[in-house]
Amino acid sequence: MERIEHRASFGGWQDVYRHRSEVLGCDMTVGVYVPPQAADGPCPVLYWLSGLTCTEQNFITKAGAQRYAAEHGIIIVAPDTSPRGDDVADAPGYDLGKGAGFYVNATQDPWAAHYRMYDYIVDELPAWVEADPAASDRRAISGHSMGGHGALTIALKNPGRYRSVSAFSPIVAPSQVPWGEKALGAYLGEDRDAWAQYDTVELVKSAKERLPLLVDQGDADEFLDTQLRPQLLQAACEAAGHPLTLRMQPGYDHSYYFIASFIGEHIAHHAAALKG
Amino acid sequence: MERIEHRASFGGWQDVYRHRSEVLGCDMTVGVYVPPQAADGPCPVLYWLSGLTCTEQNFITKAGAQRYAAEHGIIIVAPDTSPRGDDVADAPGYDLGKGAGFYVNATQDPWAAHYRMYDYIVDELPAWVEADPAASDRRAISGHSMGGHGALTIALKNPGRYRSVSAFSPIVAPSQVPWGEKALGAYLGEDRDAWAQYDTVELVKSAKERLPLLVDQGDADEFLDTQLRPQLLQAACEAAGHPLTLRMQPGYDHSYYFIASFIGEHIAHHAAALKG
Repeated sequence: MERIEHRASFGGWQDVYRHRSEVLGCDMTVGVYVPPQAADGPCPVLYWLSGLTCTEQNFITKAGAQRYAAEHGIIIVAPDTSPRGDDVADAPGYDLGKGAGFYVNATQDPWAAHYRMYDYIVDELPAWVEADPAASDRRAISGHSMGGHGALTIALKNPGRYRSVSAFSPIVAPSQVPWGEKALGAYLGEDRDAWAQYDTVELVKSAKERLPLLVDQGDADEFLDTQLRPQLLQAACEAAGHPLTLRMQPGYDHSYYFIASFIGEHIAHHAAALKG
Repeated sequence: MERIEHRASFGGWQDVYRHRSEVLGCDMTVGVYVPPQAADGPCPVLYWLSGLTCTEQNFITKAGAQRYAAEHGIIIVAPDTSPRGDDVADAPGYDLGKGAGFYVNATQDPWAAHYRMYDYIVDELPAWVEADPAASDRRAISGHSMGGHGALTIALKNPGRYRSVSAFSPIVAPSQVPWGEKALGAYLGEDRDAWAQYDTVELVKSAKERLPLLVDQGDADEFLDTQLRPQLLQAACEAAGHPLTLRMQPGYDHSYYFIASFIGEHIAHHAAALKG
């Protein structure tokens, strides 16, 4: 484990680490914001999952989340979005392979060797984080776009593991949209039953824990109708009786300007759940 | 004039324009944050000058200033840092030529043809901004590093033009440090009297207006002792009786994490001066 960035930020520290992932079979970079309150004892942890093309840098440089994390005393862990390295399989498009791990465990060649982002986010990363006495095992999870899909599916598949979950502009029905069909088809093969295990709209039907979902979506998002389709989530939650707060934000697009505008409200939401 | 970005942000709009600069003889890109209050009448304007290597993008994507601008009802105008284009002179280093205009009017070849950032920032850019009824002629100015140098020198040279001035990690004595000696030598030639016209420590001696200077400086800044040397500004202000608030911020470096941590306080400082 190596600390490769260490920058003072809002009274705490925005760090970046490189650590070995056994699950992924490669080195991974992870942004970790440590609020000033960590000096006085363990702090709860918000896991942030980024979207297509991102590394750990996008969220830590553009979201402005450190201010709110410092206000509420929350650690934010923001990992890279896929395995990396010369021996890791890749594809020409931005929406498959490196930068596009989709937070699943791949079963198909050539992806199965390294693409196990689900296990990395659910187990290995928190174990690594919580080995530090600054971090408690009170966890929340959030993310954007592909990372919003990751946050929602991971929370729904792991009852009791997260105190709260939220998402910005998430892919809610990957089995029904082009990004998801391409990625799940490649990583999981043609069996659509396997896809359903990583599809929020499917998982909501039988969720064992009715953890409320907070979702913000810009109504000027360029991917709204083709890839995101939040009305599918709304219908699934209504049918299943799953609590959902879906907020359509007028004028906002898919960019980090949108995330920055509402990340404070999301962190306040998580802080309320993480207390006590 | 062309609007090339238009993104909802904290209830207002983060725009980027491309406009023709007659002064610079090229097209320039400018970030403009328009707060929600602009719908109700003209808002005052904070001009932000960025540092070496930057374009208009660095500040608008990384500083997190929009939140505070929206809170106080302030427009923020963040221009590029030099003339641009294939016919604009450049040099191999990051600290001369494109991305390194130093906010001076060059007198030497090959720079004199386009490098007139001083006139652009003082006259042409505000005239372009204030032609829009959303912008008032109440002005404040701030910046980072080379842009902190620009903000301080421009405010000192133009009494009555700005209600307030501040800087992050500014180059305060370009005549005495390597960045400044290289750039002023190239743009202005060997006559050091010409340099003094763009040197804060020199200008403070005879400033016609004793506008208070607010300066934040990280004490872990990697350029502190070689390029920035705020103690020279402190001594000059003490000798001249010029009001200065110099805050050494423990642990902070030269990055945008530092700017983001304190931009809220700077905007509140400018907002207080811009009211009324």
